Amino acid sequence: MQQIPILKIGYFLLISIQVDMDDQVVLQLQENLTERISQEQVKGVLLDISSLDMVDSYIGRMLATLSAMSKILGAETVVVGMQPAVAMTIVELGLDLSGINTAINAERGMAMLKERR
Amino acid sequence: MQQIPILKIGYFLLISIQVDMDDQVVLQLQENLTERISQEQVKGVLLDISSLDMVDSYIGRMLATLSAMSKILGAETVVVGMQPAVAMTIVELGLDLSGINTAINAERGMAMLKERR
Repeated sequence: MQQIPILKIGYFLLISIQVDMDDQVVLQLQENLTERISQEQVKGVLLDISSLDMVDSYIGRMLATLSAMSKILGAETVVVGMQPAVAMTIVELGLDLSGINTAINAERGMAMLKERR
Repeated sequence: MQQIPILKIGYFLLISIQVDMDDQVVLQLQENLTERISQEQVKGVLLDISSLDMVDSYIGRMLATLSAMSKILGAETVVVGMQPAVAMTIVELGLDLSGINTAINAERGMAMLKERR
C-alpha cells in the first residue's frame, strides 16, 4: 500500500501529497502524522498540495481534519502550493477551509510557521 | 501528466519521489529542477526516496543523472530515506551509486548539505 512520506526538517514536518487520497491512505497518513508529532519535537506541519489539480469536499475535509489533529497535539499546520485553479474551485463550490492556514509556497509557509512559534 | 513538486526551503530544494518514474516524468523533473537551480539561489537538493520500495538500474541512473546535473549548476544533492531493503537490493544487483551522497533521513541530509556549504 502506498504511504505518504513525512519528512522532518528542524522542528517541522513536511508532507507532499502526490497520490490519490483514498480512505486507506488518509487514515494511514493521520496515524503516521499524529504519531510523529507526539513522539518527536514538532512545532509545525507543512502540507504541500501543489500536485493536486482538483480539490473536492472530501480532500477539503481531509486537510481540515489533519490540521485539527495536529493543532490538538501542539503543531500548527499550513497548506502550501495550492494551484490557482484549485482556489477558484474551492470558492465556487463554497467549500469551507476557514480552519486551514494557507501560504503560496513552502518557503512562505515555513516563514509563517516560524513566526508563530 | 503527473509532475513531481519541487519545494524550496531556505537555500535548499526538496523533492519527494512518490510516483512511478517513467521517461516523461523523469525528463520533466530534470527540466524543472535545473531551471529552479539556475534561477533561484539554491545550494543543495534533497531527494527523498522513502516511498520507493524498489530501485533498479533505471532509477539508480536517474538519481545519478539528477545529482550530476545539479552539481554542474552548483548544488549538492543528497538522496535520503532509502529503505533498508532497497540498500540490500542495490548491493546485490551491483548497482553503482558511487556518485550519489546518501543520508538516512531528511534531517541528516539537510545537516549534510549545510555542512558542505
